[in-house]
Amino acid sequence: MQNRQIILKSRPVGRPTGDNFELKEIEVPTPAEGEILVKSLYISVDPYMRGRMSDAKSYVEPFKVGEPINGGAVAEVVESRHAGFSKGDVVVGRPLAWQELQVVPAETVNKIDKNAAPLSYYLGILGMTGMTAYFGLLDIGKPQKGETVVVSGAAGAVGTAVGQIAQIQGCRVVGIAGSDEKLRYLKDELHFDEVINYHEEKEMEKAIADACPDGVDVYFDNVGGEISDAVMANINKFARIPICGQISLYNATSVPTGPRIQPIILKKSALMQGFIISNYLDRFPEGITQLTEWVKEGKLKHRETVVKGFEKLPEAFIGLFDGVNTGKLIVETK
Amino acid sequence: MQNRQIILKSRPVGRPTGDNFELKEIEVPTPAEGEILVKSLYISVDPYMRGRMSDAKSYVEPFKVGEPINGGAVAEVVESRHAGFSKGDVVVGRPLAWQELQVVPAETVNKIDKNAAPLSYYLGILGMTGMTAYFGLLDIGKPQKGETVVVSGAAGAVGTAVGQIAQIQGCRVVGIAGSDEKLRYLKDELHFDEVINYHEEKEMEKAIADACPDGVDVYFDNVGGEISDAVMANINKFARIPICGQISLYNATSVPTGPRIQPIILKKSALMQGFIISNYLDRFPEGITQLTEWVKEGKLKHRETVVKGFEKLPEAFIGLFDGVNTGKLIVETK
Repeated sequence: MQNRQIILKSRPVGRPTGDNFELKEIEVPTPAEGEILVKSLYISVDPYMRGRMSDAKSYVEPFKVGEPINGGAVAEVVESRHAGFSKGDVVVGRPLAWQELQVVPAETVNKIDKNAAPLSYYLGILGMTGMTAYFGLLDIGKPQKGETVVVSGAAGAVGTAVGQIAQIQGCRVVGIAGSDEKLRYLKDELHFDEVINYHEEKEMEKAIADACPDGVDVYFDNVGGEISDAVMANINKFARIPICGQISLYNATSVPTGPRIQPIILKKSALMQGFIISNYLDRFPEGITQLTEWVKEGKLKHRETVVKGFEKLPEAFIGLFDGVNTGKLIVETK
Repeated sequence: MQNRQIILKSRPVGRPTGDNFELKEIEVPTPAEGEILVKSLYISVDPYMRGRMSDAKSYVEPFKVGEPINGGAVAEVVESRHAGFSKGDVVVGRPLAWQELQVVPAETVNKIDKNAAPLSYYLGILGMTGMTAYFGLLDIGKPQKGETVVVSGAAGAVGTAVGQIAQIQGCRVVGIAGSDEKLRYLKDELHFDEVINYHEEKEMEKAIADACPDGVDVYFDNVGGEISDAVMANINKFARIPICGQISLYNATSVPTGPRIQPIILKKSALMQGFIISNYLDRFPEGITQLTEWVKEGKLKHRETVVKGFEKLPEAFIGLFDGVNTGKLIVETK
């Protein structure tokens, strides 16, 4: 059997390029007692991985140069030496290496129901991205019926889930994204109340004021930078701002500067809180149950951009920074 | 009887000067039914008043040009036309005008016990500043035993209360202030664990790291700006940052810029929340009861800088921005 992996060849400086990655052929490993050999089916490609490619201390360990990238993936059991798993079972693991075939300790993966939803959903709406939206919005944002929720990176995997969960809570939902195609999707298919194209708007602060006549009560921030400055200028008293991502700053090569936001946070008695989904580990069952229910009821649509071919992983990852994806970006290995 | 008031003559641009104020002689007013005539005894002089001198929308109404400044004050009843008040009663009012004698509706003031504590305490540790420290630290900062609490503006009225309340909670307390005299007071009289002089430290970020070997769990921010940047660079995961004031920025004539803090808030899953004491109006009785108890037990020391002479109000206010005060700054009218 062929086996390949993608390693981090060098740490990107600024925007990642193909040269930072290397595709290597390797042996197929053999599982020991208590281990399973799995074959990657769907691999998650996420903005936060950029942070792990740098050497700086962050909320997760940096990737090591010369070793494979790792992250969320759905895989099929090829050979099992653990009583709880059989050949053909499907599991979700986090992390799994960017590798076609790999051996893992059985306790690092979770078996999933092959029939409940398409398998790739477990990397998105029923996985980390769905839970990120669910806990970030509900636990930190605490949206109340009738309030206005603004989400940046709105057409992304987390963004689309945030907007829809906010709608379920009875909120007015305004999405910020970077292309007319994305805006059409948000408006026509997900029924966002207002959408803003940050590439075309010359005066973002005014555009947000126009889209939010009652001000902004919750700002779910996926992007940071100037887009966030414009939203922050429109927040209401007691606004809540979950900080989920700062993708506009991830490739910065020096400390990004901007208007200080503490004066606004003070003036508005606002709350800003950063989070990472693992903070909510003990509440995952609650999240999965609720999200699955909403998906079945058709209240929560899920869109994926699926790139085919294991070897396309680096290219797909780099494309994240051009916003090529609508919804969750996934590489299907075959 | 002589009567005087201090009006806002013009709005300050940048740092306030004596020219922004005017001392005027006026008539002694006569109370109507339901009103009382009061004589100001102690008048509170606070940094937040700078914000109200600007025209910009803020969390409280701007002062009007040509009208007296107003704020917290302790006053004595000179004449009462309300059954609940008698001549000689002492009241605390917020706001009272910067005026020697004034008429107010009886329901806008609260009678205080003349014997429980020195009268000026009701403008400080048993007034808005004590409650600001109490609710900001405990409700937002949520300090846990053994954690490290850093407070900027540490020698100010709020700062000294914050540090002592943090000590009562069993925390390691680090204070940042701007003179060796203040540092000595914090260290020798209030027993702060560490103190940092931001005027003398060349490398604030390192100074804070040295003073906080286990990192910063709670940062009670009174000042903003570069001092806060240095503290933020040292926060721990799940840090809490109550934003109480931003005095270093109040005189800024353009939007202050600095390193973006959202990436740190994200990386550390930190919580930053602004507040104004009126958010806690319904919990004031709890605050006063607890603070009075701590004052009586000697756990909460209170220091005031008292400037004598009603006409000194503008000068005292301007002096705030040079850090002339240790603890609460009060003008005694006689």
